[in-house]
Amino acid sequence: MTTAPPAGEPPLPPYFLDDLAPGQRFTSGTSRVEPDEIKAFAASYDPQPFHLDEQAAAASLFGGLAASGWHTAAITMRLLVEGGAPLAGGLIGAGCELAWPRPVRPGDELTVVSEVLEVRPSRSRPDRGMVTVRSETLNQQGEVVQTMVAKLVVPRRA
Amino acid sequence: MTTAPPAGEPPLPPYFLDDLAPGQRFTSGTSRVEPDEIKAFAASYDPQPFHLDEQAAAASLFGGLAASGWHTAAITMRLLVEGGAPLAGGLIGAGCELAWPRPVRPGDELTVVSEVLEVRPSRSRPDRGMVTVRSETLNQQGEVVQTMVAKLVVPRRA
Repeated sequence: MTTAPPAGEPPLPPYFLDDLAPGQRFTSGTSRVEPDEIKAFAASYDPQPFHLDEQAAAASLFGGLAASGWHTAAITMRLLVEGGAPLAGGLIGAGCELAWPRPVRPGDELTVVSEVLEVRPSRSRPDRGMVTVRSETLNQQGEVVQTMVAKLVVPRRA
Repeated sequence: MTTAPPAGEPPLPPYFLDDLAPGQRFTSGTSRVEPDEIKAFAASYDPQPFHLDEQAAAASLFGGLAASGWHTAAITMRLLVEGGAPLAGGLIGAGCELAWPRPVRPGDELTVVSEVLEVRPSRSRPDRGMVTVRSETLNQQGEVVQTMVAKLVVPRRA
């Protein structure tokens, strides 16, 4: 059974619904995107020339090899799961909004910075609630390559 | 160079911006989701117990092994690229909204049904425009496992 921390001490991660408030921020580790990984993901899930082949990509709207947006989303998720969003019960999303303002290139090093936007206890389920989190995925220049606003199911402390 | 089809004949795919109108629908092929594929995707991109291990998943909110939502999104993309959304220039998304109303289970067979919601020529770039497409990913029972509303960049006919 999980209990609340002693009064006056800040809660330790993983965070339950009760520990979260708008404005809280989390930063993930960093992941380097290798060219072979870009092509392997694309071959399995997004087999388009600009994700698979440097020459075809150079002639495309991207002007060079670019990761699939779904690959960027998947790497972002791994960074969040590996500590970038230390929520109790894991990361269970009901849905999200995604945008890819800039392509991810071979060799990019990605980091995810997240901020809690809203915390809403469930009316029908007293053991949980919904937390809205905005996550920006940044490259090594600090440029935003993906924004995600996700609604996550988070348990309350028992 | 691509030219418009003869007057009076419906355009053949792949479809340019000029060929698209709200209400047009496309249906993809079908993809079966194998348990090993669920676990392999999760190991790489969403390493949480309910995506990796049957026993841990049985005790979780999912009540059994479930595919990562990002895996469902990636499979949906593959089905769209392989013919489920026959758009000229490929499928280049600026962003989207996603929801996962129901888990994807081992052995599920997924199909994507898409509908054009809006077609908007670019004001600044006369060679292209933005098309809003709603794609529902259905399992073999016809239940919706993912909805996606995506904004896609689509070229105009020359």
